[in-house]
Amino acid sequence: MSEKIGILALGHGSKHPHNKEVVTGVAELIAKKYRDIVVRTGFMNMNKPTMKEGLEAFRGTGVSTIIAVPIFLAHGVHTMEDIPQILGISRDSRKTTIKLDGRDVKLIYSEPLGADELVAELAFKRAKEALSSD
Amino acid sequence: MSEKIGILALGHGSKHPHNKEVVTGVAELIAKKYRDIVVRTGFMNMNKPTMKEGLEAFRGTGVSTIIAVPIFLAHGVHTMEDIPQILGISRDSRKTTIKLDGRDVKLIYSEPLGADELVAELAFKRAKEALSSD
Repeated sequence: MSEKIGILALGHGSKHPHNKEVVTGVAELIAKKYRDIVVRTGFMNMNKPTMKEGLEAFRGTGVSTIIAVPIFLAHGVHTMEDIPQILGISRDSRKTTIKLDGRDVKLIYSEPLGADELVAELAFKRAKEALSSD
Repeated sequence: MSEKIGILALGHGSKHPHNKEVVTGVAELIAKKYRDIVVRTGFMNMNKPTMKEGLEAFRGTGVSTIIAVPIFLAHGVHTMEDIPQILGISRDSRKTTIKLDGRDVKLIYSEPLGADELVAELAFKRAKEALSSD
């Protein structure tokens, strides 16, 4: 990643604090590990910043590409319909161009987390923790 | 884990196939990596097996403890209210005992995935994939 890249971590949002805590926590972990990446968050429902506000929050950062990553386990109505509509991305192209600070910035929409070894490893870790705290 | 352990991977369920695919895929990855663990799935809504059916599916396996792991990113109404009610677990104890094959089997309810380095790593991987396929 040689150009200046932004990651917009997209959250579902919830009336409970937990979804926002997880999405924000994940965004912070990415920002801490990859210090050349500009990381922001945006929520679909009930929490702030909204996804639009999350995009606006890249103003002044100089990013030339923003990758919007749904912090969702799986595709569903939200990732396939609602979020592309909010971001102004057609499902086919999975990308668009937005204006920030008067410049064109590429906006790319990634896949959600999906069935990955990393999720399996984390689920197993949670199982072990529950067993050992029993 | 010296006794015979089961993991019940709990999914949200969806009218789309993706949620079930991810939860089932994660369950298969756990089963493949940890061959001494008996892994089953159960869904809250719209998909089969239901969570109750998932518990029944441990019959004949000889497990003495089942850990129910919500394959959910964060706590919310589903993990805090709906699922404990389905499993017959009070929020405080986070465990109960069920009967399978005429024996007592301990049922323990774990935390959901949460804000973990593994989720951050996977989100970053999805961002890289989206960038490289652009």
